[in-house]
Amino acid sequence: MSTINYDLCRLRALLFDVDGVLSATVVPMASDGGPVRTVNVKDGYAMQRAVLSCLHVGILSGGRGEALQHRFHSLGLNAKDVYLGSSFKLEDYRDFLRRHELQEDEVAYMGDDLPDIPVLRRCGLPCCPRDAAPDVKRVCKYISHADGGHGCVRDLIEQVLRAQGIWPSDEEELRW
Amino acid sequence: MSTINYDLCRLRALLFDVDGVLSATVVPMASDGGPVRTVNVKDGYAMQRAVLSCLHVGILSGGRGEALQHRFHSLGLNAKDVYLGSSFKLEDYRDFLRRHELQEDEVAYMGDDLPDIPVLRRCGLPCCPRDAAPDVKRVCKYISHADGGHGCVRDLIEQVLRAQGIWPSDEEELRW
Amino acid sequence: MSTINYDLCRLRALLFDVDGVLSATVVPMASDGGPVRTVNVKDGYAMQRAVLSCLHVGILSGGRGEALQHRFHSLGLNAKDVYLGSSFKLEDYRDFLRRHELQEDEVAYMGDDLPDIPVLRRCGLPCCPRDAAPDVKRVCKYISHADGGHGCVRDLIEQVLRAQGIWPSDEEELRW
Amino acid sequence: MSTINYDLCRLRALLFDVDGVLSATVVPMASDGGPVRTVNVKDGYAMQRAVLSCLHVGILSGGRGEALQHRFHSLGLNAKDVYLGSSFKLEDYRDFLRRHELQEDEVAYMGDDLPDIPVLRRCGLPCCPRDAAPDVKRVCKYISHADGGHGCVRDLIEQVLRAQGIWPSDEEELRW
Repeated sequence: MSTINYDLCRLRALLFDVDGVLSATVVPMASDGGPVRTVNVKDGYAMQRAVLSCLHVGILSGGRGEALQHRFHSLGLNAKDVYLGSSFKLEDYRDFLRRHELQEDEVAYMGDDLPDIPVLRRCGLPCCPRDAAPDVKRVCKYISHADGGHGCVRDLIEQVLRAQGIWPSDEEELRW
Repeated sequence: MSTINYDLCRLRALLFDVDGVLSATVVPMASDGGPVRTVNVKDGYAMQRAVLSCLHVGILSGGRGEALQHRFHSLGLNAKDVYLGSSFKLEDYRDFLRRHELQEDEVAYMGDDLPDIPVLRRCGLPCCPRDAAPDVKRVCKYISHADGGHGCVRDLIEQVLRAQGIWPSDEEELRW
Repeated sequence: MSTINYDLCRLRALLFDVDGVLSATVVPMASDGGPVRTVNVKDGYAMQRAVLSCLHVGILSGGRGEALQHRFHSLGLNAKDVYLGSSFKLEDYRDFLRRHELQEDEVAYMGDDLPDIPVLRRCGLPCCPRDAAPDVKRVCKYISHADGGHGCVRDLIEQVLRAQGIWPSDEEELRW
Repeated sequence: MSTINYDLCRLRALLFDVDGVLSATVVPMASDGGPVRTVNVKDGYAMQRAVLSCLHVGILSGGRGEALQHRFHSLGLNAKDVYLGSSFKLEDYRDFLRRHELQEDEVAYMGDDLPDIPVLRRCGLPCCPRDAAPDVKRVCKYISHADGGHGCVRDLIEQVLRAQGIWPSDEEELRW
């Protein structure tokens, strides 16, 4: 059923970049000149389901901001798994692996631009949105049909949870 | 004239989800990490017309926020028909039916994601936007050609009011 | 050169609706539940040129808001020509005609939804954006290729000013 | 490899307009009636790379605003190269050339509307986004496939840096 050429049942952790992945590439400018991120409500639902299903869901972003921390907290992510202001993502990625005793083939990472390449080259399932930089697409095993911020995260998580048989299907599970 | 395979004259109530239906799936992030909803000015006009025509127009949303309450108040909705922070939508749906003495086949509901499925399975006319989750599309009788936030609500209301012969047509009615 | 079937040289005044015409149909929600309008920078340039060319440029909107007043002031519009909170547009339209001693065939109006129809039925050149309501399209002589907020105003003004030979063409005119 | 018919190795400076080029043509309206600019995170990455590579990166905009100054400062631009509130762009363009001892054929400028034409007519490589005004497209040597705010800046910079052999390619360079 999946369109991803990888054994999705092996995955125990899902890592995401923020700008250009969870948030759109084009966003309003805040008064301090930084980006106002976007929320994708369907991505959010899928992230909550992944956390409830005991997958490790984490963030690797060069960006910062209190809004992001509130957002990821409200989705149920563990604060330690939210790496913001990450200037060299490979180190934070390795810290994440160590803390959760993960093998690289148990981790999917979705990034969209050149600073994501070192992590994409190492993790088991490197993914990117449709509008990722060409250099990034070249190193990814899965290119989503959806753009950054516009459903690429939902696309990945829904496929993983379906493959693992933990995507909600009956009414009891839909109570929340 | 309608593209909906349902006797629209039977409908006495229209219920809408917010995030992904009245508001777009991708929206700016507020400083508290939550979504800044979108306004669709043509949806708004149609909701006002539906209220003026004495249809029961209500909201079933897991979301919250003062902006939403102001918005729905300004459109003429009855405050009791605006269910925000609805953690189990089926209960609020049943309360809405009881309060207005509605039969299920008199109600249309438009939702976009899995928490909407229990209500969609029960109401007479289950509807969704074009960009709804696949699981939602499967249980809907009508899939709008318009995306969430981008005209799906106007599409449904305009078809219902035209079928019921109460869509404004002469200049006197257009005075407001 | 024009795609509009009307003698554009006859026009002495251009009137615009705000929501769905100058501003997009889908916009962020303000904290009071109202719409945060959009700015189209190319529409703005054309409106300034039209004002400089001594066309009467006016606004007919049911909406309100200080941001709008600042915006139209900065574009050079006469405050009296900016009708906000217009509950019955036909009266304000007639006031505009009277004040500038205009014949109806000297006026173009661009609107997008049903409350605009009474004025569209009377003015010389009734126009609308591509995403206008079907009832509105039916009464318009010109349907722009551009959506509301996304260039329909620039499209109309540029065609009018070109037809009248007052669209800037040499460097001296481009000094501002 | 480049799609631009110009010797990109000759370029020592890249100049950009803001509204309609770095920022989208359609943006939210601020409370003072002005435009809330957009940030394109992939444009930002490319601008930082260009600055690091010792190209002169500058701004020529009629717009103003503290957010813009913060933005360009954070990307590493020299404050003197950020010409905001530029009412006659040709003068500021000449000042930029003088200060950096640049020949006109060493400069690319990207603009989108009529006030940009005087500079576009003089610089070596005049560029514009896909949604530029027709008059602007006519004087440009390169029309990006991307719209203003939606990747036209990244498109230009990436092609220039690749042609000059300074687009990052190995992991060491990707450390930031």
